[in-house]
Amino acid sequence: MQIHDDTEGMALALEWAAKGMYITSPNPRIGCVIVRDGEVIGAGHTQPPGQAHAEIQAMRDAEARGNDVRGATAYVTLEPCSHHGRTPPCSDALVRAGLGRVVASMVDPNPLVAGRGLDKIRAAGIEVTAGVLADEAYEMNIGFFQRMRTGKPWVRLKTAASLDGTTALASGESQWITGPEARADGHAWRARADAILTGIGTVREDDPQLTVRGIDTPRQPRRIIVDSKLDISLDMRILQGEHCWIVAAVPNEEKEAALRAAGHKVILLPNAHGKVDLPALMLELGRREINELHVEAGAKLNASLIREGCVDELLVYLAPSLIGPGLGMFALPPLERLADKRELRFHHISQVGADVRILARFNRTKEES
Amino acid sequence: MQIHDDTEGMALALEWAAKGMYITSPNPRIGCVIVRDGEVIGAGHTQPPGQAHAEIQAMRDAEARGNDVRGATAYVTLEPCSHHGRTPPCSDALVRAGLGRVVASMVDPNPLVAGRGLDKIRAAGIEVTAGVLADEAYEMNIGFFQRMRTGKPWVRLKTAASLDGTTALASGESQWITGPEARADGHAWRARADAILTGIGTVREDDPQLTVRGIDTPRQPRRIIVDSKLDISLDMRILQGEHCWIVAAVPNEEKEAALRAAGHKVILLPNAHGKVDLPALMLELGRREINELHVEAGAKLNASLIREGCVDELLVYLAPSLIGPGLGMFALPPLERLADKRELRFHHISQVGADVRILARFNRTKEES
Repeated sequence: MQIHDDTEGMALALEWAAKGMYITSPNPRIGCVIVRDGEVIGAGHTQPPGQAHAEIQAMRDAEARGNDVRGATAYVTLEPCSHHGRTPPCSDALVRAGLGRVVASMVDPNPLVAGRGLDKIRAAGIEVTAGVLADEAYEMNIGFFQRMRTGKPWVRLKTAASLDGTTALASGESQWITGPEARADGHAWRARADAILTGIGTVREDDPQLTVRGIDTPRQPRRIIVDSKLDISLDMRILQGEHCWIVAAVPNEEKEAALRAAGHKVILLPNAHGKVDLPALMLELGRREINELHVEAGAKLNASLIREGCVDELLVYLAPSLIGPGLGMFALPPLERLADKRELRFHHISQVGADVRILARFNRTKEES
Repeated sequence: MQIHDDTEGMALALEWAAKGMYITSPNPRIGCVIVRDGEVIGAGHTQPPGQAHAEIQAMRDAEARGNDVRGATAYVTLEPCSHHGRTPPCSDALVRAGLGRVVASMVDPNPLVAGRGLDKIRAAGIEVTAGVLADEAYEMNIGFFQRMRTGKPWVRLKTAASLDGTTALASGESQWITGPEARADGHAWRARADAILTGIGTVREDDPQLTVRGIDTPRQPRRIIVDSKLDISLDMRILQGEHCWIVAAVPNEEKEAALRAAGHKVILLPNAHGKVDLPALMLELGRREINELHVEAGAKLNASLIREGCVDELLVYLAPSLIGPGLGMFALPPLERLADKRELRFHHISQVGADVRILARFNRTKEES
């Protein structure tokens, strides 16, 4: 494969970044390709925490293939790190290896890096370009950047409805509304999240596993259940297999002990109304290094999360059907004035199989986020 | 402009067809370009009824520009007509002019033509190709083809809602939910329709004009009001300007006389329940040579039209907002079983300004349509 310009080089580096999708958390997914005279002489992506970053992997790959990286151009999907974390700084390694030019997609918003990596490289006399395909690089690690900036994960709430916005009949009868392609796509979104959050209502009604299926991933996202009164029964399917985090508001020593004995974690985060303090939970999940949180819950918890400003993005699948009256996607309270409607921004629209997928982001003021 | 292949030739003919968008009804919008050695030597589109068809226009254009069409290729977006209607057959004219090749987008489903036009041309020893960009040509005249096939117009129902499917608050408070681009796009869809249908509820609540604004069109679509009990008041804005058709179920001599005196037409089409017989109305509109019918009505009339199988396509604008409970797009009755949901097929999805536009078509069995 020939690389003709910086955009092509960075697009390939992003493909390499995607290869690390499920293994780098809580670190970002970064890719690096090294190019000389249009030829890719080395490529790599971030390894699991504590192991090599993308730049080191790419240089090792070049070396293993007998290629000399001196004078070559490195395309990196994020500014090379400048600090001693679990691994030594990549910017130093690039300088030592004698790269001729470094193209970074975006400057690292991590305050420990924040331009210093590129400064170091520039100071060593190496040509630096930044900002190539920065939007794409940002999207790849949106959760990491969100956590660096706000201390909270990027929260993506998934739901599915008919074109007229109905998810189930009022009788409670529900079934798959969307097609197999949309359901498989939903699993890919689950897979890229560090954790999946649901509520006790969904656990009781649907008894879901909330695992990733049909995607080749070495990790299952952590499953988190909002269960204010610790009503969960230990035989629910979600409590089998890998351990869950159960977030409650009302202590219950006996149930807590039983859950802990089964390996689960219980987190008590009550608010003043005896419910789970959802904004505090988001900060807690940030502290626990959850970058992307995937929500699949019922209309009530969905609405609480939205009302309390905890949702960054809606992932809505609309099926080509009309159901009429029934349960909606979000049990929001009625507005007094239409002007109070919650504003979104459509980020991406596509057809997935027979369905439509809409990614919509909340318009937030800086103070709210 | 150089034409390199049949697809390019037909695409240009379709552009010419679009130039006749608002003037050809009840005839289809047809374009024709004549090409020799890759050069466009003549082009034209259907003129108003009784005047020249696209092929004649294109040949006249070639002649006016001093170009000889003998041996050239004509691209026509529909099979050239073979019968004496209001104008003589175009297939004869193409043969007489000595065209070397005729490329037709699709065979005319009009039983008076139905392959005979192309047969005539082929019989004269002219090379014929059919089927180039047939889908695009079909969409351009979907209403004409629908009327030829079923005797009814193509019925497109337009509505707009928030992402969660709400059009207004339960209190009745409503305002523009979608943005200016979507509203302008809505006017373009109105403009291509032969008629716009609404209900007395919408007339009373919103007092709309239902005219086309912001589009350069020489004709305003006929406005049709479903008003079972002839409740309409003569001072409503819709009754000013061009004349309307008011469709009622209950006779009211005095009101009928007043409406007729003001130039409007009253059509009585009662069903067994004292309401307007909507399927019969569709046949009546077909008889009156309405090709495309654009519906902008309230949730109740929308639902009645859908339930009675009168809608072919939904044109739904979804705004990037959440409103919560309120009025929906279609006041459908609750289903007993989810399996009874009405199936659609997403035909086209796009972003229009900040909004999403969804064209969805009903999946119908042959018997239903």
